[in-house]
Amino acid sequence: MDISHGIPFASPMKIYAGDYDDVADAAIVVISAGAGQKPGETRLDLVNKNVAIFKSIIPEIAKRNFAGIMLVVANPVDILTQVAIKLSGLPENRVIGSGTVLDSARLRYKLGEHLSVDSRSVHAFIVGEHGDSEVVAWSSANVSGVPLSEMCEMRGHYKHKENTAEIATAVKNSAYEIINKKHATYYGIAMSVKRICEVIMRDEKSILPVSHMIHGVYDIDGVSLSMPAIVGADGIESDIPINLSGEEALKLKESADSLKKIMETIEL
Amino acid sequence: MDISHGIPFASPMKIYAGDYDDVADAAIVVISAGAGQKPGETRLDLVNKNVAIFKSIIPEIAKRNFAGIMLVVANPVDILTQVAIKLSGLPENRVIGSGTVLDSARLRYKLGEHLSVDSRSVHAFIVGEHGDSEVVAWSSANVSGVPLSEMCEMRGHYKHKENTAEIATAVKNSAYEIINKKHATYYGIAMSVKRICEVIMRDEKSILPVSHMIHGVYDIDGVSLSMPAIVGADGIESDIPINLSGEEALKLKESADSLKKIMETIEL
Amino acid sequence: MDISHGIPFASPMKIYAGDYDDVADAAIVVISAGAGQKPGETRLDLVNKNVAIFKSIIPEIAKRNFAGIMLVVANPVDILTQVAIKLSGLPENRVIGSGTVLDSARLRYKLGEHLSVDSRSVHAFIVGEHGDSEVVAWSSANVSGVPLSEMCEMRGHYKHKENTAEIATAVKNSAYEIINKKHATYYGIAMSVKRICEVIMRDEKSILPVSHMIHGVYDIDGVSLSMPAIVGADGIESDIPINLSGEEALKLKESADSLKKIMETIEL
Amino acid sequence: MDISHGIPFASPMKIYAGDYDDVADAAIVVISAGAGQKPGETRLDLVNKNVAIFKSIIPEIAKRNFAGIMLVVANPVDILTQVAIKLSGLPENRVIGSGTVLDSARLRYKLGEHLSVDSRSVHAFIVGEHGDSEVVAWSSANVSGVPLSEMCEMRGHYKHKENTAEIATAVKNSAYEIINKKHATYYGIAMSVKRICEVIMRDEKSILPVSHMIHGVYDIDGVSLSMPAIVGADGIESDIPINLSGEEALKLKESADSLKKIMETIEL
Repeated sequence: MDISHGIPFASPMKIYAGDYDDVADAAIVVISAGAGQKPGETRLDLVNKNVAIFKSIIPEIAKRNFAGIMLVVANPVDILTQVAIKLSGLPENRVIGSGTVLDSARLRYKLGEHLSVDSRSVHAFIVGEHGDSEVVAWSSANVSGVPLSEMCEMRGHYKHKENTAEIATAVKNSAYEIINKKHATYYGIAMSVKRICEVIMRDEKSILPVSHMIHGVYDIDGVSLSMPAIVGADGIESDIPINLSGEEALKLKESADSLKKIMETIEL
Repeated sequence: MDISHGIPFASPMKIYAGDYDDVADAAIVVISAGAGQKPGETRLDLVNKNVAIFKSIIPEIAKRNFAGIMLVVANPVDILTQVAIKLSGLPENRVIGSGTVLDSARLRYKLGEHLSVDSRSVHAFIVGEHGDSEVVAWSSANVSGVPLSEMCEMRGHYKHKENTAEIATAVKNSAYEIINKKHATYYGIAMSVKRICEVIMRDEKSILPVSHMIHGVYDIDGVSLSMPAIVGADGIESDIPINLSGEEALKLKESADSLKKIMETIEL
Repeated sequence: MDISHGIPFASPMKIYAGDYDDVADAAIVVISAGAGQKPGETRLDLVNKNVAIFKSIIPEIAKRNFAGIMLVVANPVDILTQVAIKLSGLPENRVIGSGTVLDSARLRYKLGEHLSVDSRSVHAFIVGEHGDSEVVAWSSANVSGVPLSEMCEMRGHYKHKENTAEIATAVKNSAYEIINKKHATYYGIAMSVKRICEVIMRDEKSILPVSHMIHGVYDIDGVSLSMPAIVGADGIESDIPINLSGEEALKLKESADSLKKIMETIEL
Repeated sequence: MDISHGIPFASPMKIYAGDYDDVADAAIVVISAGAGQKPGETRLDLVNKNVAIFKSIIPEIAKRNFAGIMLVVANPVDILTQVAIKLSGLPENRVIGSGTVLDSARLRYKLGEHLSVDSRSVHAFIVGEHGDSEVVAWSSANVSGVPLSEMCEMRGHYKHKENTAEIATAVKNSAYEIINKKHATYYGIAMSVKRICEVIMRDEKSILPVSHMIHGVYDIDGVSLSMPAIVGADGIESDIPINLSGEEALKLKESADSLKKIMETIEL
């Protein structure tokens, strides 16, 4: 109702609370169901709670011969994306998680502010888990093709190591800081999800760091995590294995391993 | 922070928490500060609480030689708009309230659904108080110039009296229903406020039912309430005294009188 | 090629010169083929020339089991719309002409300027032939529900008869004046066609004065001309028989009759 | 007139043919005046003709204390940008030419098609003269940070040398091919100019390969040509000296030298 009342200021569309039968011919199903982490709860407690929720949702969707893209926007997003793949039986390319799309946007925003440059000209990815083990791919970060470190000097910032470490930490703690101040994040994630949906609906073949099943990239296999990929109407079209330094690649492997360990504890 | 993180998906802009000194060269100041009504509280209790808040805000803005438009989006909006006019000492045309812009959008949405027609082709206003005494101006309601009653018959709806009464009630209760279900309304009012700001920023001279000081329309004088008006860069440019039936005009007068009575209880 | 080069500034899409086989699954086919009127040529000469062009195009489309909307944007648009209906064998609702959508926009623009008000708040239609016999529906013209004559007085214009006559003439001569100055009109018509396509693509059920086959409105039957209609994904959904004064209705009938006479001279 | 008629489908704005006095408070002046090259005419003939035109325009603007950005969109754009700087006496950062913004868009579009990837994820610049001596900066070209050659292999294209040579030639000949087929290019350049104006109006600090006065980049000094630069409300804010291979740098120097020679022939 609340959104519908704004339609006279936008353009006609149908906004309604559907049920499972409505997914049959949907282009995208966004799964945002999931409990949040409560004080005193361990991370594994949260995993188990949300896996239980997914067990009640995903098979219902699968039953309806859903032929579109399943987009997971609940946490821990990488685990739940992988759970959704298994429970749905859908081809792996058609199940994706919002992953580090928002983290990468936060990184680009912060770098844009640091360099006084349009954040859309900043190209930098966060890869791996959407969470504590996430990895900033500094070695491929650039501004319109100019390596980040050069660009920083050009703009009068010489303490590259300190600055980037500070920015990475700020990005990683963004969600905590926002949650601390207003209980939840919603604008940034909403704009990220809108962007992902747009790319799918228009078959844009854009490159987005969404969470998806990885096979054989940087020695990672059978884990869902974020790596830039070409995304279009069929979901994941192709991985874009950006260049990582040795250290970054190692950290990414660790991120994958930690996700794998959690997956092993889950009974599906 | 949360909004800023979406900037890489939009376009560059500065989003920050300013202080009073930032209003000096602002084009618009939106005042959304205000407490909500609590259970057991009377409506007058709310008025007094929010007037007190305005007493702490408005003079601070006035002190900064604010030269833009003051837009009040707190409830009771008509009372607070009038309070803002008095406390600020600004010319009356430069202080407006969101008024019945959202109520009218709800009405147009409901009528669009009822008639299976683009709600943007439906022209209908709710006038008077944004609240229980609001008045639907049915007698001037039309769809692309075709009187509403004719249009309803054309679309196969013959119980005009019952249908319009039902729609008016649904519109009046919309906010309560949404608040009941999810604690607050925000999407509809956000899109309304965006529309009002757009009209001011672009000097559109569009017609909006905003709350503003009325002088001599339908025997109403010195009360702020919603009537369609031409709105542009200078705020209210001119009233548009739409045609009301005798009954509608009487109800509008009553709405104005009830607002006047509340105003008389307020010490400024 | 020229449009494609702007894609990096817009969003990905396929722009290409197709052939008849591409219409099979098209949502809309815009037919803009048609010669222009040359000096010394009579209007009937032009009709015959463009009917010949349509005879080579429309059957090719019909052969491909075209299931979308056919939108005619060539002149004389009312005649060619009717020709397209006959040659295609498509249901009448799925063949429409751009009609007086642009003429009505010109009228609204001129009135908006005259009244210093957003042209989108001005509701006024030109009906009948897109051409010399077109009729301004002054009697239903309004600004947000306020009759035009009242609105004019409110804005300080008292010579209603003279002003409206002048505006009607200026609108009717707009195309000639633009063609005279820069050989062709294209921006206005482009925005009109974009608007019509948008309404169809989004199934907006908006009200547009497109040219379409009329049956039994104001004593007109079996002629294609412009009357406001609800337009959506299926093309014409329903006529909106706006109120005309006796004089306007008579002129509309004459407009229809003159089109009928031309149609009788055409062999299909 | 033609554009104004589309306003009811857009939003209110003033479109009018102004005169020199209107530039006084303009944010941007786009100078598109200039003759086209005629058969049999040498390139220097064209230069002289358009320099004469600029001599009649630029001083008139300078006289009005113009405080905005002067954007040159006439050919040969690099020469005319430099001429405009001299004739106007404006600070160099406030006079820019559309340069290779369109050429770079064409390159990105072609590469996007070649790689089946969103052209907005392709980062590649054409630098130097907007014309025959322009240089593709292949060595810094990348897709989301992945070097172009790697990306090509990933997408199954192994003849990198041939492919890139072919694409560069196609881009260089685009304008000729379009002009040959429809007399003029306008959509692509229009979207480029819109993008440049947007960057200035919103102070985006985006990176665009506009033509501007170069001092000390790759051994070039005192010539206006295209190099990526940070552009904002003040025009050129800072050069972005992208990495060029030795060969590319040499070609760029040659491009600069050929422009310098032409400049020397011009009397201002």
